[in-house]
Amino acid sequence: MSYVPAIVIHGGAGTILKSLLTPEKEQAYLSALQEAVKAGYSELTEGHHALDAVIAAVVSLEDCPLFNAGRGSVFNHHGKQEMDASVMRGDTGMAGAVAAVKNIRNPVLAARAVMEKTPHILLTSSGAEEFARMAGLQFEPDEFFFDEYRYRQWQQLKDTQQTALDHSDKKFGTVGAVAIDINGNLAAATSTGGMTNKQFGRIGDTPLIGAGTYASNKTCAVSCTGDGEYFIRALAAYDVSCLMEYKNLSLEEACRTVIHDKLKPAGGEGGLIALDRNSTPVMVFNTPGMYRAYMKEGKTSAIIHEGV
Amino acid sequence: MSYVPAIVIHGGAGTILKSLLTPEKEQAYLSALQEAVKAGYSELTEGHHALDAVIAAVVSLEDCPLFNAGRGSVFNHHGKQEMDASVMRGDTGMAGAVAAVKNIRNPVLAARAVMEKTPHILLTSSGAEEFARMAGLQFEPDEFFFDEYRYRQWQQLKDTQQTALDHSDKKFGTVGAVAIDINGNLAAATSTGGMTNKQFGRIGDTPLIGAGTYASNKTCAVSCTGDGEYFIRALAAYDVSCLMEYKNLSLEEACRTVIHDKLKPAGGEGGLIALDRNSTPVMVFNTPGMYRAYMKEGKTSAIIHEGV
Repeated sequence: MSYVPAIVIHGGAGTILKSLLTPEKEQAYLSALQEAVKAGYSELTEGHHALDAVIAAVVSLEDCPLFNAGRGSVFNHHGKQEMDASVMRGDTGMAGAVAAVKNIRNPVLAARAVMEKTPHILLTSSGAEEFARMAGLQFEPDEFFFDEYRYRQWQQLKDTQQTALDHSDKKFGTVGAVAIDINGNLAAATSTGGMTNKQFGRIGDTPLIGAGTYASNKTCAVSCTGDGEYFIRALAAYDVSCLMEYKNLSLEEACRTVIHDKLKPAGGEGGLIALDRNSTPVMVFNTPGMYRAYMKEGKTSAIIHEGV
Repeated sequence: MSYVPAIVIHGGAGTILKSLLTPEKEQAYLSALQEAVKAGYSELTEGHHALDAVIAAVVSLEDCPLFNAGRGSVFNHHGKQEMDASVMRGDTGMAGAVAAVKNIRNPVLAARAVMEKTPHILLTSSGAEEFARMAGLQFEPDEFFFDEYRYRQWQQLKDTQQTALDHSDKKFGTVGAVAIDINGNLAAATSTGGMTNKQFGRIGDTPLIGAGTYASNKTCAVSCTGDGEYFIRALAAYDVSCLMEYKNLSLEEACRTVIHDKLKPAGGEGGLIALDRNSTPVMVFNTPGMYRAYMKEGKTSAIIHEGV
C-alpha cells in the first residue's frame, strides 16, 4: 500500500490584532510558514521518515524569531528564555521531550535526542541541558535568542505576578508539525517558549506526551497550541486518538469534539493540527485564527485568519 | 443518590525477593499500609472530600521511610533526593503536580497547593520549591529524608550510568491512593522519589496527569506504579478512563486491558489501583506483586504478594 506524503504545521493559535498586523508583518509570517512547511515536505519527497519531516519544519520555526519557540522565545519572570519541546513517532510509539531548557538552539532536536539516546522521555532544566551538551547539540548565548519585541513585552510585566501570552491580544505562542511519509508512518512535534513572565518552573502542555503532542500509526498525529493547562487536563492530543480508536470517529470529528465540544465550553482556547493515514490535513481551532500551513501533492497553503 | 465511601492505596508494584523480606519487614510494610489506608478512610467517614482522603493516605506513606516517596526517597546521580507528586479531583477536573523538588516534606501537599493556589498544573525544581515556600509548606533538611538503605543502594551505583528501581530485584517505588467519598466524588494522588541514580532531571509518569494519575467523576480515579516511560507513552491512567467512557468497558476490564493487554506485551511492568462510583476496589498488576491495601464499609485488607 502506498501513502500520500503530507505535512501540516502551526505557529500558534489566536491572532495578532489586525490593527497591529501590518501587511509587511503578515507577509513575513506567511513566508516563514511557507519556508517551514517546505523544509518538512522536502524530507518527505526525498523518501525520509515522517519524523525527519516534523523535525525539519519545527527547526525552521524555532530559528525564526517571529514565533515563540527557540530563537525569539518569550522571557520568564527572571528574564530568562526557558523552552519546552517534544516529539513522538507513530510507528514505534517512542517519544522524547525537554522542559525548561535554556540556550539549546533547537529544543526539538534535544527532544529527539532524548528519544533516541536515552531510555527516558522527559528531561528537565539543567539536567536536560547537561544531557544535550553530552549529545553534542548546538548551544547559543542569550543574545542569539534575544528579541527586542519579546523583551519589551516582559519589561511591561516583570514587576507584577501576571503572565501573558505570545501577543498582548491572545496569540498562543507555540509551533508544531505533523506529517505522514510515503510508508504511512506518522509523527508529531511541538515546541514553545511558554508564557511571558512565567514563574516557578511552570510547564505547559507542549512537552507532555498525550497533552500537546501524540502520534500513533493506528490513529493519527496531533500537535496542539493553546491554554496549556486546559490541554493537560483534557489530554487533548491523546483524546483525539482515543475518540478515533475506541469510538470510531473520523479524524476531523475527533478533532472538532476535543476543540469545540470539550475544550471551548470548559474555557480552554486553542487549536490543533492533525493527520491520519488518509493524508487529509485537519486544522481546528476555537480562536479567531491559527497560524498554519500544509503541503500535500506539491501544493501548499499558508493561512492566519479563519477562512482566509 | 448515596455512595459507599472507599479508598485503595498502593506502595509500589513488584516485590522484594522473599529471601530478603523477613517476617518482621513484611509486617512493617503491612502495618504501614494499614495505617495509611485508615488515615484516608477516616477522612471519608468524617464526610470529607475524596481529595482529603487521598492526600491523608499519601502523606502517611510519604512520611514512612519504607516507601520510596517523601522521607526515604531514593538518591539521584548527584546524591540528592528529588521527588515528584500529583493529585487530581474528579468533580472539577482540576489537577496539580510538582516534579524534581527537594526538601519539601510532603510533595503531595505541594501538588495540592499548585492545584488550589495557582492557575498552573505542573511546577518543577527550584521554581516549584520557591512556590512551596510561599505557600507555607513544611520543609525539612536533607537528614530528614535520609535513609541508610537507600544511601547504600546509591553508593553501589553512583560511579556508573546505571539507574535502579526501588529495590534491586525490581520493586517500583511509588505510592498512591484513589478514593470515593459519600457524595460520589472521586480523587487520585501519586508520589515518588523516582529511580536510584537517575540523571538529567528525568521525570517519570508520577507527576504527569493522564500518565500516572487521573480522576473524573464520569469514569474513575486511577494511580499507577511501574516502568514510568511505558506508562507515559501509554497514557495509562487516562486510557483506563477512555476505555470506560468511549468503549463502555467496566473499570476492571479497562484496567486489565491497559496493564495486561497493552503494557505487558510492550515490556511495561507495573500496576495500578482504581475506583469508580460503584466503590469496588480494583488492583491490577503484571508484576509478581504490588504493595496495596483498601478499606470499604469499615473492612480493610493489606496485601503484598499475588493472591495472598
